[in-house]
Amino acid sequence: MNSRRIILLAHGSSDKRWCATFEALAKPTLKAINGSRIAYMELSEPSLESVIHEGVSAGNREFTIVPLFLAAGRHLRKDVPAKIKALERSTGASIELSPPIGENPLLGHAIKDVVALQLDQGTSK
Amino acid sequence: MNSRRIILLAHGSSDKRWCATFEALAKPTLKAINGSRIAYMELSEPSLESVIHEGVSAGNREFTIVPLFLAAGRHLRKDVPAKIKALERSTGASIELSPPIGENPLLGHAIKDVVALQLDQGTSK
Repeated sequence: MNSRRIILLAHGSSDKRWCATFEALAKPTLKAINGSRIAYMELSEPSLESVIHEGVSAGNREFTIVPLFLAAGRHLRKDVPAKIKALERSTGASIELSPPIGENPLLGHAIKDVVALQLDQGTSK
Repeated sequence: MNSRRIILLAHGSSDKRWCATFEALAKPTLKAINGSRIAYMELSEPSLESVIHEGVSAGNREFTIVPLFLAAGRHLRKDVPAKIKALERSTGASIELSPPIGENPLLGHAIKDVVALQLDQGTSK
C-alpha cells in the first residue's frame, strides 16, 4: 500500500452547486484510495493548507496533489507551486504536484464517451 | 446518423499551451463524431459565434454545445445562455446547451483511473 497521501485539488467557488459537482467528481477516487482527500485552492473549505496540516498531524510526510483542472493556467504554473513551496518550508513535508487531470489521455476518451452517450439518449435532456 | 452538430465548448485562454491541452482533450470526440467541432467562449479561436455561423452556412440547423468545463459557474449559467439566445435570434438555428462534462459520472471514474495509474507508475513523474 502506498502511504503517500493523495489530495485532489479543485479551484473552489462561493457557489455551493459548483463545489457539489467537484465533490461528486472526487467521490470514486476518495472511495478507492485510502486516505485521499479533496481540497480547494481558494474560496471553499477545506483549504489545501488545512488538508496538508491535518495530514502532517496524522504522521504523513509525503503528499501528491492531483489538480482537478482540465488544463494548466496561471494557478497551476504559479500560485499552487508557490503555496507548495511555503507548505514544504513550514511543515517539512514533501509535496509533489501532478499534471492536471485533463493532460491524461483517459480524460479525452471519457469526454468522447459522455458525448456519444448523450447523442444516443437523444438530446432532449 | 445524427445530423445535429456537436460543439465542444472550452473557455479559451491567451496561453497557447492551455489551448493545446483542450485540443488534445477534444481529439477523440472530433474523430468519433462526424461534423463535431471545438469552439472557445473567449480569448481563443475559433469562437462559438464563428463555428455556429460556419455550421449554418453549411446547412446545419441544430447544434448541441457540450461544455468542456468540470462544473457550471457564472459562464455556463449566464454568459453562454446569453450568447446562445443571441445566436438563435440572428441565425434561426436551434442551439441546445448540455450540462458540463464534469456532471457526468463517467468523468469521476476517469479521474479515479488517472489517479490509480499515477500511483501505480510511482509518483516521480
